[in-house]
Amino acid sequence: MIKQTLESNLNISTTETKIDCLGECKFKNPNKKNSDFNLTQKRIIINPFLDGEAESLKNLSSFKIASPSTKIFFDYGTVRAGIVTCGGICPGLNNVIRSIVLSLTHYYGCHKIFGFKFGLQGFIKKYNHPIVELTPEVVSRIHDFGGTLLGTSRGKQQACEIVDTLHRLKINQLYFIGGDGSLRAAEGIAEEIKKRKLDIGLTAIPKTIDNDIPFASESFGFDTAVEISTKAIKSAHIEALASPYGIGLVKLMGRHSGFIATSASLSQRDVNYVLIPEYDFDLDGDKGFLNDLRQRMINKKHAVVVIAEGAGQKLLKNIDKNSTDASGNPVFGDIGVFMRDQISRYFTNHQMNVNIKYIDPSYMIRSVASNTHDDLFTATLGQNAVHALMAGKTNLMISIWHGVYCYVPLKLVNQREKRLSLSGRMWLNVLESTGQPSLRND
Amino acid sequence: MIKQTLESNLNISTTETKIDCLGECKFKNPNKKNSDFNLTQKRIIINPFLDGEAESLKNLSSFKIASPSTKIFFDYGTVRAGIVTCGGICPGLNNVIRSIVLSLTHYYGCHKIFGFKFGLQGFIKKYNHPIVELTPEVVSRIHDFGGTLLGTSRGKQQACEIVDTLHRLKINQLYFIGGDGSLRAAEGIAEEIKKRKLDIGLTAIPKTIDNDIPFASESFGFDTAVEISTKAIKSAHIEALASPYGIGLVKLMGRHSGFIATSASLSQRDVNYVLIPEYDFDLDGDKGFLNDLRQRMINKKHAVVVIAEGAGQKLLKNIDKNSTDASGNPVFGDIGVFMRDQISRYFTNHQMNVNIKYIDPSYMIRSVASNTHDDLFTATLGQNAVHALMAGKTNLMISIWHGVYCYVPLKLVNQREKRLSLSGRMWLNVLESTGQPSLRND
Amino acid sequence: MIKQTLESNLNISTTETKIDCLGECKFKNPNKKNSDFNLTQKRIIINPFLDGEAESLKNLSSFKIASPSTKIFFDYGTVRAGIVTCGGICPGLNNVIRSIVLSLTHYYGCHKIFGFKFGLQGFIKKYNHPIVELTPEVVSRIHDFGGTLLGTSRGKQQACEIVDTLHRLKINQLYFIGGDGSLRAAEGIAEEIKKRKLDIGLTAIPKTIDNDIPFASESFGFDTAVEISTKAIKSAHIEALASPYGIGLVKLMGRHSGFIATSASLSQRDVNYVLIPEYDFDLDGDKGFLNDLRQRMINKKHAVVVIAEGAGQKLLKNIDKNSTDASGNPVFGDIGVFMRDQISRYFTNHQMNVNIKYIDPSYMIRSVASNTHDDLFTATLGQNAVHALMAGKTNLMISIWHGVYCYVPLKLVNQREKRLSLSGRMWLNVLESTGQPSLRND
Amino acid sequence: MIKQTLESNLNISTTETKIDCLGECKFKNPNKKNSDFNLTQKRIIINPFLDGEAESLKNLSSFKIASPSTKIFFDYGTVRAGIVTCGGICPGLNNVIRSIVLSLTHYYGCHKIFGFKFGLQGFIKKYNHPIVELTPEVVSRIHDFGGTLLGTSRGKQQACEIVDTLHRLKINQLYFIGGDGSLRAAEGIAEEIKKRKLDIGLTAIPKTIDNDIPFASESFGFDTAVEISTKAIKSAHIEALASPYGIGLVKLMGRHSGFIATSASLSQRDVNYVLIPEYDFDLDGDKGFLNDLRQRMINKKHAVVVIAEGAGQKLLKNIDKNSTDASGNPVFGDIGVFMRDQISRYFTNHQMNVNIKYIDPSYMIRSVASNTHDDLFTATLGQNAVHALMAGKTNLMISIWHGVYCYVPLKLVNQREKRLSLSGRMWLNVLESTGQPSLRND
Repeated sequence: MIKQTLESNLNISTTETKIDCLGECKFKNPNKKNSDFNLTQKRIIINPFLDGEAESLKNLSSFKIASPSTKIFFDYGTVRAGIVTCGGICPGLNNVIRSIVLSLTHYYGCHKIFGFKFGLQGFIKKYNHPIVELTPEVVSRIHDFGGTLLGTSRGKQQACEIVDTLHRLKINQLYFIGGDGSLRAAEGIAEEIKKRKLDIGLTAIPKTIDNDIPFASESFGFDTAVEISTKAIKSAHIEALASPYGIGLVKLMGRHSGFIATSASLSQRDVNYVLIPEYDFDLDGDKGFLNDLRQRMINKKHAVVVIAEGAGQKLLKNIDKNSTDASGNPVFGDIGVFMRDQISRYFTNHQMNVNIKYIDPSYMIRSVASNTHDDLFTATLGQNAVHALMAGKTNLMISIWHGVYCYVPLKLVNQREKRLSLSGRMWLNVLESTGQPSLRND
Repeated sequence: MIKQTLESNLNISTTETKIDCLGECKFKNPNKKNSDFNLTQKRIIINPFLDGEAESLKNLSSFKIASPSTKIFFDYGTVRAGIVTCGGICPGLNNVIRSIVLSLTHYYGCHKIFGFKFGLQGFIKKYNHPIVELTPEVVSRIHDFGGTLLGTSRGKQQACEIVDTLHRLKINQLYFIGGDGSLRAAEGIAEEIKKRKLDIGLTAIPKTIDNDIPFASESFGFDTAVEISTKAIKSAHIEALASPYGIGLVKLMGRHSGFIATSASLSQRDVNYVLIPEYDFDLDGDKGFLNDLRQRMINKKHAVVVIAEGAGQKLLKNIDKNSTDASGNPVFGDIGVFMRDQISRYFTNHQMNVNIKYIDPSYMIRSVASNTHDDLFTATLGQNAVHALMAGKTNLMISIWHGVYCYVPLKLVNQREKRLSLSGRMWLNVLESTGQPSLRND
Repeated sequence: MIKQTLESNLNISTTETKIDCLGECKFKNPNKKNSDFNLTQKRIIINPFLDGEAESLKNLSSFKIASPSTKIFFDYGTVRAGIVTCGGICPGLNNVIRSIVLSLTHYYGCHKIFGFKFGLQGFIKKYNHPIVELTPEVVSRIHDFGGTLLGTSRGKQQACEIVDTLHRLKINQLYFIGGDGSLRAAEGIAEEIKKRKLDIGLTAIPKTIDNDIPFASESFGFDTAVEISTKAIKSAHIEALASPYGIGLVKLMGRHSGFIATSASLSQRDVNYVLIPEYDFDLDGDKGFLNDLRQRMINKKHAVVVIAEGAGQKLLKNIDKNSTDASGNPVFGDIGVFMRDQISRYFTNHQMNVNIKYIDPSYMIRSVASNTHDDLFTATLGQNAVHALMAGKTNLMISIWHGVYCYVPLKLVNQREKRLSLSGRMWLNVLESTGQPSLRND
Repeated sequence: MIKQTLESNLNISTTETKIDCLGECKFKNPNKKNSDFNLTQKRIIINPFLDGEAESLKNLSSFKIASPSTKIFFDYGTVRAGIVTCGGICPGLNNVIRSIVLSLTHYYGCHKIFGFKFGLQGFIKKYNHPIVELTPEVVSRIHDFGGTLLGTSRGKQQACEIVDTLHRLKINQLYFIGGDGSLRAAEGIAEEIKKRKLDIGLTAIPKTIDNDIPFASESFGFDTAVEISTKAIKSAHIEALASPYGIGLVKLMGRHSGFIATSASLSQRDVNYVLIPEYDFDLDGDKGFLNDLRQRMINKKHAVVVIAEGAGQKLLKNIDKNSTDASGNPVFGDIGVFMRDQISRYFTNHQMNVNIKYIDPSYMIRSVASNTHDDLFTATLGQNAVHALMAGKTNLMISIWHGVYCYVPLKLVNQREKRLSLSGRMWLNVLESTGQPSLRND
């Protein structure tokens, strides 16, 4: 997805961009063909923006560009790799798994690759999940399917027991596919490994269908999610037009950020209201959403409303603000069902007979196979994760920044957050194309 | 969709298959090219089944095969046609509208075609909906979109006022696209026209996404609906496999019949339980659904359940059995949400930690554009509706029966119903492929 | 695909519909659930058409409806099944293979199933192709892919050696998926088996993407092929409109019959000329195709032409009429490239500057995975093939006739051919919707 | 599409990035809502790459980031806009047209918008093409279709006559959608306008399905083209596996650059040889392509080959190297057909019986509607083109650079070219994933 959001604070110190290494690279890269990996461009600066023409760049902090290394840390015969997928499913998970297995096998000649089942549960004895041997044959066509071959789960597990398991199984490379809460867990595991001075590398491939991981211009599966989301919006639009006073209401994913809702609405341009977590709106009152919607229904006789799952949480008064799910994420009330009922009640009170059609496509989005865009993206992420770990780099995530694959320390990722800027061009485009007013009484 | 359901009672008297006519066909068909419409095969028998090899056919009742006529009832210059779409939306509505307009215009040279907006409301003064002039330009690309250009609505309107409107606007051909309740309304309108001895013809194109109109082997939009339904089932399957103890639950359309649920499940063959209105099952008890599901979860660790919206209505005790919607259809409780909550409660009580993912794709199915199969189907239905009305045939519906387009009197349609036979091959195939037991305690 | 072609000559004698059996059915169907397979409707009459209302049916010849039997011929423990796919690839081949394997395994408990590689070559020693063991795991997801897991080939092989191989490997059920030439080979194999008095059953599942196998209302993969073909036509239409004097020319499959070209053109209704093998047309001359096209280009400035690969073969003078390919099918010159060049030359001669865009999508059609319609179709064909062979029925094909799955003797199939009738409703619909004149000078 | 190609020479002088302006911006932006367009980030540096950690950036040349301006050059009441699409069709053309029309109308209140038909021919009297008035109604749903509402053509036209026409029709904003040759034409027109001192602004939206316009990280339609290309590759792979010794050969677009072939191959990862214009290979000889292919066929028994249309041109000896088409582009021989014949001849000579399936999907790729990714991209490009022209900016193209929409002078674009770097990461990924050797004898 072409992003134009300009994140505001990109002042990162050079120290923060430093990548941990397991040790000296003593072995030759077994791959003969690409003998010269000396890219002339080695780093990409984090903040390429200038405020004005003449000004100089204030900050040259940069990320190392991902690539294979001439010398590598691991002797390929000794590699025992583990792969785990954590959190909710997301288009492209299987591609990442497949790419890691193919790169390890075909490029580096490593043949001991193990899949841990159902996320971090896979490392914990009491769950007793099997460990799966991964070969090119096993992963041969998994990228044509959604979900994850390995299964996944939410929820914290003790870093200690995870590292115990890695140690016991002699795993020395851990490929960690997860987002948000899981990346904090990954950092914890990497720290525990460091504390114990084990030669185990950990590289994360950031996974968030919401596209809200910092220092990732885009996350895999997001482009696919937006594509399927637009189908739901098209359906809502068709339904809204088909009935007298039709209202199509679509709830899209986005717990903390409205990237999916915004991108899908901008692609489709049939949406009249886009409500996202970053955007505070009132329901009632003269300038509130309901009154504005009523004016529109009187004038235009139909409307399409897109709401992200994390939007309008202040309206859901009856939920326990402190409750969290197994991963420690706050539990959200169902804003979609709430809005459907509020709209219905409101128009009944105003004696207008509207036809609301509510669509919640989330599980039909998360579970699809990735589109071609994400196929290419995930295959390359997986390749680069292998290059990073073979060179002994650890406690990092593989990312794409300004179109370039690079390495970002997990610590840096876990200290920031990524939100859609309400003063950025993307949100302004939403306002331009929907004509949506502020929806606030103050 | 290839149907193999064999409906049991096809003993129809010859009288019942007779088509009403407005009068003698005095005008030559203006179309020069196909001067000879004398098909050698004029009728298709209703019941082509034999019980044994030697037996003779007991009943030769048959439907007239649809085709243009050499002589027609209407002088093309005097035709003023009206088109209306009633009830819920369904893939292919726009194709039917387009096909009628193109056939009237290009084949018969009729240029006065009017669209009534929002179903039967379009004929009723108080709603004040505009009347739309329909030309080849207006309908040129509408078949690429779901929904209906004309809008639709549920609800009865007085046949008297509808005929008044037709009379006032000098409409002499009414193309009526609707199903079930609407076809009863259509018959009422045709009777009122007959009572008043007006030269207004009425032909229905049967519309039911549920595929439950009698004497229609298949209804348009059904093939498309099954196609999109299988995507929801795939998603449920992927979700079920992705979590520890995952259950994917999909609610599909089907108020009185399980054709969509059954066909989609048979196409996909990843479904473990198919619950349809025709099939009575118990929730609780030793042989009930919940206990059977629990056994499966213990053994297989995941499950996919498909339920039609009209299934298990006996379980929804708290709904008013006598309540009906605007069209007079009984209001159903939401069996999907009910089942999700019951499953959740049940496993909590049994201290099993299952992950239920519930998918309700209905509005994302109804609203898509028709697939190629339905494109061809709807285009041909529309053509044949025009041939029927130009020849003065009235009070009938255009249908496909054993693969042949034919004319069926509305009276006959409204007296029967079409359900999935539990002793037919289609349902037996479900039992074969799911391995699902009876799910009943008695 | 909804067919309305009415084939003219359906006068079949009762003898011709008789199905060969290997012998008495002595074993109980192991499946407990569906204990009662006594369908009340046992046969479907071949010709359900009446010429007029009063007339009686002249011919009651009928096909046996497919279903499981209460008593079966084979003891399930002794079954050794072979599966082979012959001829060109077609959407749905993998589904048929999968369905046979799943039905044999889960329904009948047969576990010895072998796949022969690359069509009839798989039975011939000199090719040395491996034999593949087929289990539910092996076929688990193959239906999501086009092509055939087993590979295929064209070309005759000696029935003698094939039966030798079956005998040597103790195969007693042969599932034969192929069309046209292959069905003749299948009959030859069945005859050879009979001559040797071996207890080997053979059931064919008819495969022809062209939909031209007699006594099959529809063949699997055809609906999918039409769907993808419409995309090529859409592209041709878009290209024709995008350039000044644009002509979009599409060659579609159809060696002897124009079902794909006709169905795709009728679905899409953007086509101006449909040229099929059954339809003789002139290229040159006043009423010939080229002059008519020129008139259209002058008036409308763009055109879309669809031609089936077997059309206009009389125009390809320089090919050897007697040459045949490995399967004994006549070799066709490439009518698509020929027409492109002829159109180009003609307009150059007439000093008109047209833009021809030629599209040949054949390999992109044959190779796709089947759509949902064909998923359901193929799964049911496979199931019924297993029911037939378990009951000892042999030398037959599983077919769908007037919407009902039934058994048709191979001998009957191989004696007839199926073509699109130029006086049937389907071709008349083409003339109605394209406005295409006779294109013949005589 | 996620690009990782690092272009080598990005040393641009600050002068070269300067955007021409028609004059002072005196009018207020009529849009009240987004009163503050003062983005904190105003420019994006062209070269964000560092060679090593410590190094400082040598070059701070940057492009202005696209955004609406507080003050604008044109009084909205006086705007008369023209839109033209040039060169081959490409997914997304209609979206760009629609976006320009909607932005001009809804955002700026400009209602005089004209479409010129069939590319630059539309400005030339002798062609006599009509001029189309463009309104929100006309463009309302065009983005759901491929091609271009306006038509297009190749070929140079005199800048003089084009400017005469603009002047005569009082067009003061020209939206120019075209690539390569057309962008040179656009610069010529802008220069002619400048010479005559007319207040006509010209902004280009770069269009190249090949993705080879300099200073555009990605061009619209490319992501869609890659998506459809992968379908052709999947088909080739399925075909190659389905026959004994099967070879699937796919020709993809890419006259001077192999971005489509490379991206599609990397997405799909079933390709064994990728041949692109930038990559010189030998056909014959020990290390040549044919011998390598033969070794693979012996070992692996199937192969998939992807070749870009501009690859291997040295092999096509019989074509006139100096011939050019109407746009002045060199005419290429058909490398796809040539390779198919060469492979066939070669294996016949080596008495190996291979099955080659050749797929040329070009017209089925160019003509599709854009995917969601390109929907969002094109809509934003169109919006920004309007913002640029309203502010009087001229002789520029709207581009996306490192994920940010910005303005690039046409002069700069026309002086460079963009090719896939054989030492960049993208091509190295191809070598990694195909295992393809150098294919050169030297």
